[in-house]
Parts: sequence; structure tokens; C-alpha cells
Amino acid sequence: MTVMLSKNEIKGIKALGQKKFRDERGVFVVEGEKLVEEALRSGWKVEAVYRIEDIGEEVMARISGLTHPSPALAIVRQPAPESFAMSPDELVLALDGVRDPGNLGTIVRIADWFGIKKILASEDTVELFNPKVVQATMGAIFRVKVHYVDLAECLRCRGLIPIYGTFLEGDDIYRAPLTRGGILVMGSEAHGVSPEVATTVTQKLFIPPFPPGAQTSESLNVAVATAIAVSEFRRR
Amino acid sequence: MTVMLSKNEIKGIKALGQKKFRDERGVFVVEGEKLVEEALRSGWKVEAVYRIEDIGEEVMARISGLTHPSPALAIVRQPAPESFAMSPDELVLALDGVRDPGNLGTIVRIADWFGIKKILASEDTVELFNPKVVQATMGAIFRVKVHYVDLAECLRCRGLIPIYGTFLEGDDIYRAPLTRGGILVMGSEAHGVSPEVATTVTQKLFIPPFPPGAQTSESLNVAVATAIAVSEFRRR
Repeated sequence: MTVMLSKNEIKGIKALGQKKFRDERGVFVVEGEKLVEEALRSGWKVEAVYRIEDIGEEVMARISGLTHPSPALAIVRQPAPESFAMSPDELVLALDGVRDPGNLGTIVRIADWFGIKKILASEDTVELFNPKVVQATMGAIFRVKVHYVDLAECLRCRGLIPIYGTFLEGDDIYRAPLTRGGILVMGSEAHGVSPEVATTVTQKLFIPPFPPGAQTSESLNVAVATAIAVSEFRRR
Repeated sequence: MTVMLSKNEIKGIKALGQKKFRDERGVFVVEGEKLVEEALRSGWKVEAVYRIEDIGEEVMARISGLTHPSPALAIVRQPAPESFAMSPDELVLALDGVRDPGNLGTIVRIADWFGIKKILASEDTVELFNPKVVQATMGAIFRVKVHYVDLAECLRCRGLIPIYGTFLEGDDIYRAPLTRGGILVMGSEAHGVSPEVATTVTQKLFIPPFPPGAQTSESLNVAVATAIAVSEFRRR
């Protein structure tokens, strides 16, 4: 079956590469057979699926945001924002200004692997529905809920829930006391945890280089640091 | 001071974006003030440094491989290949077909953080001097030695040194016996560890999802898995 897309339809899909149009229409794009399958199985509302065998290679290349277009592209409705709640023994991630789409996508994938269902993100964190974020989640976007909030404000209201964060002056994460539940704050690529958010942290953690005190790279990539920290929480 | 670059010089630098010309001339490019500083302090032979204040913004944009050109670019000689040797209590990484430049660069940075001085890379692993790899190492390239080898052959000759690898059917990494030294094999993004290399592995490891057995993402990104595995070796 060949489906003809009008010029305007092609333009409309292509425009979803920009946040303005995603916001306006409340949808986002997923590409790749695996991701489209996950979208269809996710329970999220899939508004349209375009397959290369239906629309042809040339049209797929025009609507795709990828350098190498894939065989399938879907337009998916963004879920309505929900209010955030957590149980005391739940582990939740909080991202303070993570700007790189690949990092956010990778962090969502890490969260999914380690059974973290909720992520708090500061308002200056990159948008979840950015195509590079969506692709980097490898489908985890459908299983992990990301809440955009005024992060410092939100963390100030967490009551008795422990708040962990990674800092250069923090305690050795392999030895520090870690509870089963809590909020783990990860800072931005360039500036780490912001001063305002830092005041809410109840336990500062540090991933020590090896051997401890060695002169090495200045820091770890934020997705890598997230992986190591979450792994350590889950190991305990 | 203004330095004039001829058209041919500009073309020559720009050409270093391609492996063919890097191989031919035995050099590679680093960009960014921090990376250029690290190159100058590294002891590696720096053949030329170009600064935006000397050559002007327009010329920098022409020689740079970055979307947003930085204030400094250096041309650095590739070190001569060395033969590989390791002591029995040393931890060494082995990469079996890692293709993504960002992943290789991030893995080199992880190695640096955790005091791993040597990486074995299969011949189909992305080239270390690819500009995207170099940039992603954030300077760790000057401290970690990457040896390109026939990996299966090399691992078959390791004698009594334990060889670890991550596999879906491996033992829980948090509980498996880990020695201080050994070789940790990480597979490619798409295919994991190749069958030929897998036969050399003496202890198969697995990073369990949480809760164990949960239906989550199919896998972790190779750089993320490397970070978690190396962190666990170093914690012990």
C-alpha cells in the first residue's frame, strides 16, 4: 500500500523537530522499528505510524530527523503532566540542569534498568521530548516518568526523605550510609549541583577515583556518574 | 599577532577530520582551550597550536571540525604503537568492536578516573584519533594507552590472568568473585562480545536490573556498563 503525504503533512511532521511545534501540538516523534513497537505496546496514544514500505524511502528521508532514516516513524501524544508523589522506600533521581540530550536519554535508560520509575528534572533540564533524548532512551521513555519542577522548591518540601547528591567534597559513596529510598540529585555537565539545590542535600556523596586521590580527569560524565551511583544504591 | 594561513594549510588541517589523512601524516587534532592545555602538558609532541586571537574567527571556523569552533586547536603527533604488557594485579579493559566514537571517548575517560592505564581494542573498534573520540575523552586520551590488537588472539595468550566479560547469562557482578587484576572485556553496542572472544572469558558477569529479573530496557549503553563494572572492581 502506498500512502501519499501532502507537502503540508510532510512539513508538519518535520516541524516536530522543534520544541515550539511539539509544545503546540502536544506530540513528539519516535523513530526506528524497535522504538515504534515500544510506543505501540506502551499504552501511550500513538497518533500515526509511517512505514517506509508505505510512504517510500524519499518521503521517509524528508520527514525523518535522523541522518540515516529508519524504516518506521511514529507520532506519539505527550502524556499529561502528573503531580509527583513518592513512597519513603522509593529511589528517585533528580536532575539539576542536565543540558545534553544524549545524557538525559541515557539517564532515563539507566533509571529504567535499575527500577527507578520517577525522575525530577529542574526546569532548565533539556526537554524530554527532544528527538535526541527520545532516541537515546531506547524506549525507556515509556516506562520512566520525568517531572519538570522548580527543583530547589520541590526538594525543600521533601520532609524527612533523605536527599543525596554528588559533590567533589562528598563522602566516599562506597562507604557512606545509603538508605533504600531517597532522592539522588545529579548536577549539570558544566556546573554540577546548583547552590540553591545543594542546600537541600542531606548527604553529599563522591565517587572516588582509583587510587583515591589520584590526579585524573576532572570529573565523570553525568550519565556515567549516575550509573555508578544508582548501581551502588541498588547493590546495597 | 595575526598569523596568515594559506589555503593549502587550511585544507591540510581540515583534511585531518578524515582517518586517511591522519594515518598518512601520523597526527590528530585536539580542540578547546582545556584540551590544548592538556596536550601541551602531556609530553606528547604538539606540532602546532592555532589560537583564535592569532588566526581570526573566520579561519578558525574553517579549520575546526566543531559546530561551534573553540578558541584553540592543536595538531598533535600520534604516539608510536607500543607492545602490550601487564602485571598480574593490574586491571585492563578490552573493547570488542565498540563503534560509537562518543562511547569510546567516554570509556577512555572512565578508565582514567578509575586508574586504568591500558585498554586493548579489537581492530574493528573505532579509531582513537577520530575527532569525536578525542573530544569525548576530555583529555584522558593523554593518560590512557589504547592498544589495537587482534583481540581474540591476544586474549588467548593471556596465560593465567583472569578474563571477565559482561553477558546476559553472566553471574551477578555484585556477588561474583572479582580479583584485583585482570582483563575486563566489554562488547560492541549492537552485538555484545563476539563468539571468538567469548571463548577466552573465564568469568562471565552480568549487571542485574532492579529488582532482579525486572522487565526493563534490553541493555545498558556500553559506556554505562563499563562504568558500573569498573566501579565494582575498584570498590572491592
